[in-house]
Amino acid sequence: MQNYSEALSVIYWDMRTGAPKKGLAQRAEVIGTLSAELFALQTSEELGNILLHLEQEELDFVTRRLFEEVKKGYNESKKIPSDEFKAYTILQAKSEAAWEEAKAASDFQIFLPYLKEVIDYQKRFVGYWGIKNGSAYNTLLDKYEPDMTTDMLDQLFGELKATIIPLVNAIKASPNKPNTSMLFEHFPKAGQHAASLELLEQLGYDFEAGRLDETVHPFMIGLNSGDIRVTTKYDESDFRSAVFGTIHECGHAVYEQNIDPQLNGLPLSTGASMGIHESQSLFYENIIGRNENFWKHNFAILQKHSPEQFGHVDVVEFLKAINFSEPSFIRIEADELTYPLHIMIRYEIEREIFNGDLQAEDLPRVWNDKYEEYLGIRPENDAQGVLQDTHWSGGSFGYFPSYALGFMYAAQWKHAMDQDIPNFDELLSRGELAPIKNWLTEKVHQYGALKKPNELILEGTGEALSATYLANYLKEKYTTLYQL
Amino acid sequence: MQNYSEALSVIYWDMRTGAPKKGLAQRAEVIGTLSAELFALQTSEELGNILLHLEQEELDFVTRRLFEEVKKGYNESKKIPSDEFKAYTILQAKSEAAWEEAKAASDFQIFLPYLKEVIDYQKRFVGYWGIKNGSAYNTLLDKYEPDMTTDMLDQLFGELKATIIPLVNAIKASPNKPNTSMLFEHFPKAGQHAASLELLEQLGYDFEAGRLDETVHPFMIGLNSGDIRVTTKYDESDFRSAVFGTIHECGHAVYEQNIDPQLNGLPLSTGASMGIHESQSLFYENIIGRNENFWKHNFAILQKHSPEQFGHVDVVEFLKAINFSEPSFIRIEADELTYPLHIMIRYEIEREIFNGDLQAEDLPRVWNDKYEEYLGIRPENDAQGVLQDTHWSGGSFGYFPSYALGFMYAAQWKHAMDQDIPNFDELLSRGELAPIKNWLTEKVHQYGALKKPNELILEGTGEALSATYLANYLKEKYTTLYQL
Repeated sequence: MQNYSEALSVIYWDMRTGAPKKGLAQRAEVIGTLSAELFALQTSEELGNILLHLEQEELDFVTRRLFEEVKKGYNESKKIPSDEFKAYTILQAKSEAAWEEAKAASDFQIFLPYLKEVIDYQKRFVGYWGIKNGSAYNTLLDKYEPDMTTDMLDQLFGELKATIIPLVNAIKASPNKPNTSMLFEHFPKAGQHAASLELLEQLGYDFEAGRLDETVHPFMIGLNSGDIRVTTKYDESDFRSAVFGTIHECGHAVYEQNIDPQLNGLPLSTGASMGIHESQSLFYENIIGRNENFWKHNFAILQKHSPEQFGHVDVVEFLKAINFSEPSFIRIEADELTYPLHIMIRYEIEREIFNGDLQAEDLPRVWNDKYEEYLGIRPENDAQGVLQDTHWSGGSFGYFPSYALGFMYAAQWKHAMDQDIPNFDELLSRGELAPIKNWLTEKVHQYGALKKPNELILEGTGEALSATYLANYLKEKYTTLYQL
Repeated sequence: MQNYSEALSVIYWDMRTGAPKKGLAQRAEVIGTLSAELFALQTSEELGNILLHLEQEELDFVTRRLFEEVKKGYNESKKIPSDEFKAYTILQAKSEAAWEEAKAASDFQIFLPYLKEVIDYQKRFVGYWGIKNGSAYNTLLDKYEPDMTTDMLDQLFGELKATIIPLVNAIKASPNKPNTSMLFEHFPKAGQHAASLELLEQLGYDFEAGRLDETVHPFMIGLNSGDIRVTTKYDESDFRSAVFGTIHECGHAVYEQNIDPQLNGLPLSTGASMGIHESQSLFYENIIGRNENFWKHNFAILQKHSPEQFGHVDVVEFLKAINFSEPSFIRIEADELTYPLHIMIRYEIEREIFNGDLQAEDLPRVWNDKYEEYLGIRPENDAQGVLQDTHWSGGSFGYFPSYALGFMYAAQWKHAMDQDIPNFDELLSRGELAPIKNWLTEKVHQYGALKKPNELILEGTGEALSATYLANYLKEKYTTLYQL
């Protein structure tokens, strides 16, 4: 199973890093053949028997967790009648194509019939999988963030919202707007590439166990424990997509590069959850990558590779510019302060689809109302609004909360790290990141999926996940930046 | 089978274009799993039954050829007892490692025990496969060049040798030595890459059905009919490895990019033989790429990307330099005139191993004697002599002749092309290569493996393969260049 899955990952990486388009149709056949074989193995009677046998055995800790993870995957696949699963796979492909078309035309109606069908399937699947912790949506949440519930999210997001919205409003009212014009000056691609490589080196990325390539939608992919690749995107009139994208994916990659080698080749050699994974990428991107001291050390890299753009810029001005905050429509372009609001909107909509009676046809209106309520802006069309993300077209309901959870985890790691590494800022300013990476490896990376998210955060920080640390981080940072 | 084979090709390409080294051990497991499944399909009872059934059917031309090719592969795998095949696969890996070690230490004795065993296996395999056209070595030749025999090779190489050796001696004696110093000046990698891309474009390579990457040992790989990739190697103190390497691989790629789409997805969508494949790469590299008129049009590309090196150089001087000929020890670095002699030496040795009684322990001496006889130089050590090529370590006996056959085919295609395209040189000097490519597509490319090598050359040129055209090409070219 691991070998088939790795072969598929190589093909997936290749398709997203420059595979020639005329070969893609035939490549889809290859994916079909390997996926079918993988699915057959994942749902085989043989595997079922092994699981049944292990159920009754005394298992050591690693084998127990391995058993649990494999069983979870087995049940997820096995409980759905195979005809239905196959039909759903075909629907997914059509739905994703319809979403692309709808987004290009900015017309939700093109996507609506597919979306309705995808939701119906997901509701039926929840029926097969069983209600978890009292609600249908919890079953979906659990796929991405084990044991997460709407009760917890309502509490966490509620607290966060109460901090963020007043901050956003205060910033709107503040006269202290940074000058951001230097961000959009021409930065040649070759220089961005060279800068990305230098930053990865500085951040502790192991190039003997990975590589950096160009793509359209950046991602990190762990092919195996010794081959953890990152990708980025070069926009010559906005270097941030490459530089912060690279730092973000580096956080994901450093996580997987530092999992305990004893888990090599096992399905446990991966992140504990989407949220924990995102906690590492956001720790790197925001807690490190938007920190003044980090740039005191590294701004010279940007100045070297784009001297006309940055040669005359002061690092403090640069810091203000990259931390500029303003409500905007597109989630993936949002700044760190407003970003969680984009997630809350999606979470509330998903929760009401599965736990309430929100209908697919009402999504554009509900979406726009919530943007107006939370961010004070109203999308002018569907492309700018409800159609911007691909997740729902593929049926990934329950995924969005991970992004905001990751930021909460990250802030809580930072709070705990401050006890052990009081000179965090000083280390950054000297470019000595090893103690920081080692702390994260000790508390998070090494375990892979051996521990569950709630175990990791409790054992690593001494308490359960709380929104307070992120709220405090944002309040302190933006109050200072905007002199509120 | 095609899908498994394509997945393996993606992995193979990836391993040779920058896959991180720490992931390779695990990737080998993936290759093992997919190869085992592919071998099981290739030797399955089901496939055997299909072949048995088709044997008795009336088949259309394409299906008949498909049947023949699949049957040839089936027999090749099936006739070897599977235990023996497995043991041989393990031996191959060990033998290749031993060859690498021996080459690094320049010590044939390290490699000898493995080479002996590989030869023993190959002799046994010939026994299983059956003697073809009267001799054991013909069976091996047929794997790479269908229907080729030692009788034909003795005649072809004999004629060629009678032309080449006097030319090589006359050049040695000639006072007209070109100045080659400009070849070795610094040419930055980025410029070589840009020049390679421009040359590929000019030569008709389809970038929507391929890509160019960097590697250590350049190769072309056809993943599927819409994904035919080339690779090259950048040596900053000898641009020829990238530029002529790229042109060479482009010839292979243009062949596969122009196979009739009706063969897509079939095992016939590949070259007719190693020799015919090499005829296309050598047509591009030598007949086009070392032609004065080609460089009259394209020298500006090199001047643009390396102005200090070439800005003051006259194209005629450049031409003389890139066509410089001199006996040398290493096959892959040899010029086009002496290259066939390197092949003849290997051919004669292989023939005597399988048809005569040449023993592995005698190879270094026989090798060195032949270099002295044919090229007038004697290798000083094993690395420079018998250990230079990897082929024998993997058991690829019968492969070497393809390289020289390819050059003979290429010269014969050129002779036939002259009748249809009398203004060949003029087209090159204007950079109009489409008519030349289209001619090759009409006579060679489109058929893929639908026709056999002897059918292609007979139908495309009106006669069987002859050494005369290559002999004439070399005589005319080098007599003029060196004013002999």
